[in-house]
Amino acid sequence: MTRWYENIVEGEEFPLGAHTFTQAEIIRFGKAYDPQYFHIDAKAAKKSHFGGLVASGWHTVSVGHRMMVDALAADDERQRAAGEEPGVAGPSPGVNSMDFRAPVRPGDKITFLLVVVSKRVSESVPGWGVLINRLTGTNQKGELVYQAELASFTKLRDFEPETTDKLVIWANKFPILRRLLGK
Amino acid sequence: MTRWYENIVEGEEFPLGAHTFTQAEIIRFGKAYDPQYFHIDAKAAKKSHFGGLVASGWHTVSVGHRMMVDALAADDERQRAAGEEPGVAGPSPGVNSMDFRAPVRPGDKITFLLVVVSKRVSESVPGWGVLINRLTGTNQKGELVYQAELASFTKLRDFEPETTDKLVIWANKFPILRRLLGK
Repeated sequence: MTRWYENIVEGEEFPLGAHTFTQAEIIRFGKAYDPQYFHIDAKAAKKSHFGGLVASGWHTVSVGHRMMVDALAADDERQRAAGEEPGVAGPSPGVNSMDFRAPVRPGDKITFLLVVVSKRVSESVPGWGVLINRLTGTNQKGELVYQAELASFTKLRDFEPETTDKLVIWANKFPILRRLLGK
Repeated sequence: MTRWYENIVEGEEFPLGAHTFTQAEIIRFGKAYDPQYFHIDAKAAKKSHFGGLVASGWHTVSVGHRMMVDALAADDERQRAAGEEPGVAGPSPGVNSMDFRAPVRPGDKITFLLVVVSKRVSESVPGWGVLINRLTGTNQKGELVYQAELASFTKLRDFEPETTDKLVIWANKFPILRRLLGK
């Protein structure tokens, strides 16, 4: 799933698999990063507006990310096994939007899916493309619980830098110069 | 810091404190939710584009959220100690944007700050206001490492529902009706 920019098709879907959220892990994440009572106390949570224990939104996001990282690694392995060289992904510049549509409760099985929304060649970072991907999580009842639009960089396979490109690539290695160039 | 809608001032700043990211916790989070080599293997990370181990962006986000939850709880306590009733916060409908500006490395001390960007009375959920808050994380060198715009609900203190409002409040208690009404 780490594909070269040229091989990425807008609209392409990558299933990331499913994860069942247990009460124990919901409480563990909640205690570490989101200790609001409806994330850590099943009994007290019954009186909340959720009517019961629910996963922290950041827990859902983190599990979805883990599923994506695992799927990327497995796909790289498949490509290598087929004698192909996997593409190269860069750091994520950020998140365009993120919505929490429905609560994730203990026992809920969330299926994650990645869709390529758009691709374009980066103007500021020669040799790289910018992808906008949509990551969704859907529960066992078919309800969308979570949706995010994520930006990411992916490398161009067929890229012959010109002299000015080479200068920009060199300058991008130094944080101070990179900041002058913008993102 | 859980304030009634009427008491919230646009532009108001809430310092959330600082957190120093240790190598051990960066690796622990990475192994659980973001097992890319530059989040879990300090030696291999030296060859990455980061030049060393860095925290997963979701780790930074989760710690920032934890700092916010703790600050909210402490502020509620202060209000109660002063004989005041704290405001009521609702669930977060989502994230408008999120940028990772600079890596967080082992030993980095990140200071988190919450700023109220805007407030408005919700049209679809009577009795509640919608806030847009900006959460930032800044390292010990003064560099912005992370910035997010978050939406949240907060309750109006002085709210006398009219008959139609009462109907909407009642309908909002049922997921199916709530979906018909929109968010």
